[in-house]
Amino acid sequence: MRMTDLYEFGAKTEIGSYTFDEENIIRFASRFDPQPFHIDPEAAKRSLFGGHCASGWHTCAVWMKTFVAYWLQETARLERQGLKPPTLGPSPGFQKLQWLKPVFAGDTVTYSVTLTASRALASRPGWILNNILCEGENQHGVPVLRFESTVLEFE
Amino acid sequence: MRMTDLYEFGAKTEIGSYTFDEENIIRFASRFDPQPFHIDPEAAKRSLFGGHCASGWHTCAVWMKTFVAYWLQETARLERQGLKPPTLGPSPGFQKLQWLKPVFAGDTVTYSVTLTASRALASRPGWILNNILCEGENQHGVPVLRFESTVLEFE
Repeated sequence: MRMTDLYEFGAKTEIGSYTFDEENIIRFASRFDPQPFHIDPEAAKRSLFGGHCASGWHTCAVWMKTFVAYWLQETARLERQGLKPPTLGPSPGFQKLQWLKPVFAGDTVTYSVTLTASRALASRPGWILNNILCEGENQHGVPVLRFESTVLEFE
Repeated sequence: MRMTDLYEFGAKTEIGSYTFDEENIIRFASRFDPQPFHIDPEAAKRSLFGGHCASGWHTCAVWMKTFVAYWLQETARLERQGLKPPTLGPSPGFQKLQWLKPVFAGDTVTYSVTLTASRALASRPGWILNNILCEGENQHGVPVLRFESTVLEFE
């Protein structure tokens, strides 16, 4: 089956949630984004953000973590129903990433995916390029992350 | 001083290099992107990529790591010269991220930044929005990562 058999254009699907706590924010940031407002909760209070918050790249990486876990569950669910799940390939990149609001220690972000377009690639028979809108919002329903991604699919 | 005092528009500045090895590829991917071609070197050989390669999000996170380290060195260098380094703020997001080629285990990516535009924000006096082109190329000079980012600066 194809992604377009599985998802309606424009329908938002929740893929999972993740709580950013002091420990995991510091662990990621120490390795990849060691700025004071990500690695030092006290210094963060005096920063532009006014509090200890996650690296934007961390919020993206957790989108990926959440999507991979969701997709494993989805493929298992479809297989249990005797269906053949869509075969997804790598992403060539994405557009318009926005870090809309800080993700503070203690925030829980719920991620979602919305299929927005799908087209066969004339140059590569059997390859399909899907456009998806990827979003995250915090426990107050406030959008914190948004990007428009592309995902390859193979017939 | 301002970013525009420090960098010429269109001039590429190397900010550092990083070698993606089997261990660090697996460590990141296990946590955030546990797909077979990122976490299992044997399975990766049979994948579309034909070899064990880093998560795209890992190559982005290392761009950030490299930039933070570079910027700490730059600010220290400017201060030693008695200059006041530009005051950078957070990034609201970026555009057009492209994962151009896989980054395989053993590859060394050299990252660079190019200032492409800078403008004062009419809505926020004292705030400047800089556009930068962020690139990574492997040890063969082949581009692997490219995105257009924005960085706030405060007068």
